[in-house]
Amino acid sequence: MSGHVLLVGGTHGNEVNAPWLLRRWQQTGGPPLPAETSLAVTCAIGNPAALAAGLRYLDRDLNRCFRHELLGDPDLCELEVLRARELLNHYGPGGSEPQAVVIDLHSTTAAMGSSLVLYGRRPADLALAAACQFRLGLPVYLHEGDPVESGFLISLWPCGLVLEVGPVAQGVLCPHTLRRTELGVQTLLELLQEAAAGQLRLPEQLRVHRHIANRDLPRSSDGTPRASVHPDRLRSDWLPIAAGDPLFLGPEGPIPLEEGTPGRLATLFANEAAYGEKGIALAVVEQLSLRCLSSWSEALRDVLTGSLASGTVASGTVARSDHPPA
Amino acid sequence: MSGHVLLVGGTHGNEVNAPWLLRRWQQTGGPPLPAETSLAVTCAIGNPAALAAGLRYLDRDLNRCFRHELLGDPDLCELEVLRARELLNHYGPGGSEPQAVVIDLHSTTAAMGSSLVLYGRRPADLALAAACQFRLGLPVYLHEGDPVESGFLISLWPCGLVLEVGPVAQGVLCPHTLRRTELGVQTLLELLQEAAAGQLRLPEQLRVHRHIANRDLPRSSDGTPRASVHPDRLRSDWLPIAAGDPLFLGPEGPIPLEEGTPGRLATLFANEAAYGEKGIALAVVEQLSLRCLSSWSEALRDVLTGSLASGTVASGTVARSDHPPA
Repeated sequence: MSGHVLLVGGTHGNEVNAPWLLRRWQQTGGPPLPAETSLAVTCAIGNPAALAAGLRYLDRDLNRCFRHELLGDPDLCELEVLRARELLNHYGPGGSEPQAVVIDLHSTTAAMGSSLVLYGRRPADLALAAACQFRLGLPVYLHEGDPVESGFLISLWPCGLVLEVGPVAQGVLCPHTLRRTELGVQTLLELLQEAAAGQLRLPEQLRVHRHIANRDLPRSSDGTPRASVHPDRLRSDWLPIAAGDPLFLGPEGPIPLEEGTPGRLATLFANEAAYGEKGIALAVVEQLSLRCLSSWSEALRDVLTGSLASGTVASGTVARSDHPPA
Repeated sequence: MSGHVLLVGGTHGNEVNAPWLLRRWQQTGGPPLPAETSLAVTCAIGNPAALAAGLRYLDRDLNRCFRHELLGDPDLCELEVLRARELLNHYGPGGSEPQAVVIDLHSTTAAMGSSLVLYGRRPADLALAAACQFRLGLPVYLHEGDPVESGFLISLWPCGLVLEVGPVAQGVLCPHTLRRTELGVQTLLELLQEAAAGQLRLPEQLRVHRHIANRDLPRSSDGTPRASVHPDRLRSDWLPIAAGDPLFLGPEGPIPLEEGTPGRLATLFANEAAYGEKGIALAVVEQLSLRCLSSWSEALRDVLTGSLASGTVASGTVARSDHPPA
């Protein structure tokens, strides 16, 4: 899987901009690759059935299905679990067409601009995120330590990032989202090319917004929201919030962020529409700087040049599927 | 039904801000009424089942069901057709608790701000819209002459307007949307009170954006969109467009508005997410000024004071329903 990069769009079927780009690239000879590239890039629609239906998912959120307890349960035949097995059997580290790196392309209804999402602190992921932040200035959401939300697609490949672009309504093609997604993909492919050639340049620090907690709206005993997200927070993704600052707005006035969590806090994904059903109105994050290590670039180079054994990501529990990849 | 006003929210179940306000008002003693009012205001959730499911509708768009050929077809038992019959049997002009005026509260993902929607040119509707435009400056979308889209809820009451607020993602509570919806309702109730007392003040002109045509995205033979809405149009709802101005943006560049339609044109509902399935990327409208007539105010007063026979709106073909109103 040396130099093999998988671009996935439509992991959520109501995020239609990345799938539109992927299909256009498939028709026009591929995505915007650097000249004389050693990369081999493959495009895949994450959840074709949900995309056709215009829904985030049909049975279960595909981007929470990449967990061994789901994938290895032979009694579980939900559409998205089948599709997760299929993607792994085809493109996973032990699959028939293994890919070293996955870029999973998403969009959000939150006014967050473009950003990268990291799940945990794998050195190769950190290298790619740091180099991309250095090149484009994008903020990075480091999702870790969340006991509830897990099973993200990229977590079962040796290296992977989410590119998240917003705001855009679900189900609509938006020229800004298309342009930003295309710019992100082009940049990430350039950086992967540089990494494979041992030429990746990292900044001294990677600035991340580390996940602390998801917050639901305040609710009455019958489950009805007692307040909305505060207007200040709707225009302040990535910006600091302190204890006492307004977090929600109810009929009786602002509801502030409580004392209790130390650190430089901010909020993210304010009013992301898809998170309502998960009981998430926004995420509280901590602003951190991580010192970039040369070992990160080496790890990414190893992933790209195939120096890593494919067994570094466990795929033995993945059940086979009879469904051909879409 | 003298002075009886029905406020409806959640006609589309994924537009959650108005239902939230209606339920709060039900708990706290009613909506913001003018002092010493003669109005009797009732609140109703349009489509409770779709609201509970977080979907625009379950079987059929409720706000296209108010057509006699659907309502009168005894073989048609779709959930929304049943609900339309129920609302009419309860609150319609011939119903058990008849209402003279309906205000139907909607939201949109398009960046249109707050506006009023008129279906046709009924004098009482024109009076209320003109007075509200005079008070708040809101633009007015006059929907008429559309052979495809019909059966809107308010059309089967003696008087009715849609209040449309955006942009807001589907399914999320938004403080701006809540505030703008509340302001719109408060103002419309004040104006109805003034109209009932014969004190309604109209401007000389009512400025409307009259529906000309819905436009779908340009598509390939397989149905795939070849272009998105042009960025200029995403920030230009209500603003003029001339032949030759960019309307869509494809990989080969901008696609302009064709020659052909005379008049001062504009676009509306650019990228409203719910219209994708209807094949509508935006609406082309014509800017018109209508001279306000004193007969409009008189018609609205007649509706509010019960001087109109309830038979002015045909309800004889409405089948009975056993479902209690929600």
